[in-house]
Amino acid sequence: MLNHPPQHHDVLIAAERIRAHAHRTPITTCSALDKRLGASLFFKCENLQKVGAFKFRGACNAVFSLSDALCERGVIAHSSGNHAQALALAAKTRGIPAYIVMPSNAPEVKKAAVAEYGAQITFCEPTLQAREATQERIIAATGAVEIHPYDNYEVIAGQATAALELLEECPELDVVIAPVGGGGLLAGTAISAHAHNALIQVFGAEPRNADDAYRSLRAGQIIPSDNPRTVADGLLTSVGTRNFPILQEHLAGIVLASESSMIEYMKFFWERAKMVIEPSAATALAAIAENQELFVGKKIGVILSGGNADLNRLPWL
Amino acid sequence: MLNHPPQHHDVLIAAERIRAHAHRTPITTCSALDKRLGASLFFKCENLQKVGAFKFRGACNAVFSLSDALCERGVIAHSSGNHAQALALAAKTRGIPAYIVMPSNAPEVKKAAVAEYGAQITFCEPTLQAREATQERIIAATGAVEIHPYDNYEVIAGQATAALELLEECPELDVVIAPVGGGGLLAGTAISAHAHNALIQVFGAEPRNADDAYRSLRAGQIIPSDNPRTVADGLLTSVGTRNFPILQEHLAGIVLASESSMIEYMKFFWERAKMVIEPSAATALAAIAENQELFVGKKIGVILSGGNADLNRLPWL
Repeated sequence: MLNHPPQHHDVLIAAERIRAHAHRTPITTCSALDKRLGASLFFKCENLQKVGAFKFRGACNAVFSLSDALCERGVIAHSSGNHAQALALAAKTRGIPAYIVMPSNAPEVKKAAVAEYGAQITFCEPTLQAREATQERIIAATGAVEIHPYDNYEVIAGQATAALELLEECPELDVVIAPVGGGGLLAGTAISAHAHNALIQVFGAEPRNADDAYRSLRAGQIIPSDNPRTVADGLLTSVGTRNFPILQEHLAGIVLASESSMIEYMKFFWERAKMVIEPSAATALAAIAENQELFVGKKIGVILSGGNADLNRLPWL
Repeated sequence: MLNHPPQHHDVLIAAERIRAHAHRTPITTCSALDKRLGASLFFKCENLQKVGAFKFRGACNAVFSLSDALCERGVIAHSSGNHAQALALAAKTRGIPAYIVMPSNAPEVKKAAVAEYGAQITFCEPTLQAREATQERIIAATGAVEIHPYDNYEVIAGQATAALELLEECPELDVVIAPVGGGGLLAGTAISAHAHNALIQVFGAEPRNADDAYRSLRAGQIIPSDNPRTVADGLLTSVGTRNFPILQEHLAGIVLASESSMIEYMKFFWERAKMVIEPSAATALAAIAENQELFVGKKIGVILSGGNADLNRLPWL
């Protein structure tokens, strides 16, 4: 496992490592959205990645970076979201056990998806304390290796492969933007973008209701969100300690999106691009719309983080 | 305009004619659906076509097949669905007037879409009689040329270009399947499939609740549906007189789908393939599932007819 922030070289190793397991996702465009936003947008479709989200890249790279001896006892994470599925599938692909700690109130569909990949699920109270205590107990009993969803350099290197592929196919971008929760995707995106061209502006997109990365960058230190509420359920976590310095080094800024705008652009994208994206992915579209003066006339690469939306509970209905 | 059923040669002319105007849509796969259905499915994504449906191919070919002299007074159709938008955009692209007769109770979103393409809309009572009378009145006043949504050989040749492209990229298909309403798409699909390989089995997929093509083929004559009700709003029309003999000549059969199965597979495709398809497109998936013995182990090309679903009224909610 990397013990330093990933360099471009490490991202190339990650790309090689996950090539046989992860999808090289397509890049798409949407002329109706270009017209509306006055820019040229290129969408890296991680909603079409395995498990429906970019998370598989990082989990896969982390799991396959472990030595045989280190990983034979399995890997572990506490997560109720896309990382749980991603780690479960990565472990299954490598043929090692995965232990997933999930809050007992996690949606049934997510429990089922993780179980389908053969992970051993342990349920606990829905508090961070309970999740961490449960995880520690299982690590003590099994010797499993923790794979943190974002505060992990191999995970960051894996997430960086999405922007790497995007820039291979669209080398002339002026701007690259990705949503930011814990900052794994955004940190990786920034590393790949600036290895390609130091002049590319890298922006993070964040819900106004969960704007810890925005406030942390302004303050020069991590200021976690306190129980934020946003429709973008993938962006509730606060930025991680390994992620924050990378964001400080690379970002042109964080642009914010309101809840109503995120829902509006999520629906617009479904309607016009005919693609299912999750609210976290729509955050980038809404943040561009709400900060249009920064983006007008530019060629913008957008990492669509995922497509795991709950079709029984659509936010515009 | 063609005055005989299109041959492969006519389809190649249509493909050349619409090349600069229509999208060459991608072909996608969905391993979760392959696993569930026990077959290998290749989806021709006409949900990503202009106006969100295959209809643009036929309308575009018909409009551009007209002589300058014939079309300068414009084109006309009565339609509340995808053909209205398709014809409006095709006419706009050629720079001629489009007259669209719509029932007064058509959804606002459809009225707005047709108006956005610059068509002149005339509203009438929501009966076939009123629609036809209104259309005749406008033709008498303007000299506009009627472009029927399916009972038109140039339209059929245009719709045939979707399967032409599919088979160029997936030449080894055992089966090709498309939904059938008026039969423009299915007739065109059959012509292209058998020009490629006479051994390909061509199936139509039809809602059990609007099974006029199924019954007509059994009877050897057209038996229209009487006010059918199905979630697949694109498949309410009965098979056309120019379409029926082509279906008789080419089809291996019509396979039927229940309403609940269409809704189930529509949702499954959104969830797993992350693509928005309309109920008419899901008809093919549901019909394969309900007639699995015909399809198991085969390589199947599926024409996904479109993606114009009403996101405010999802059939599973």
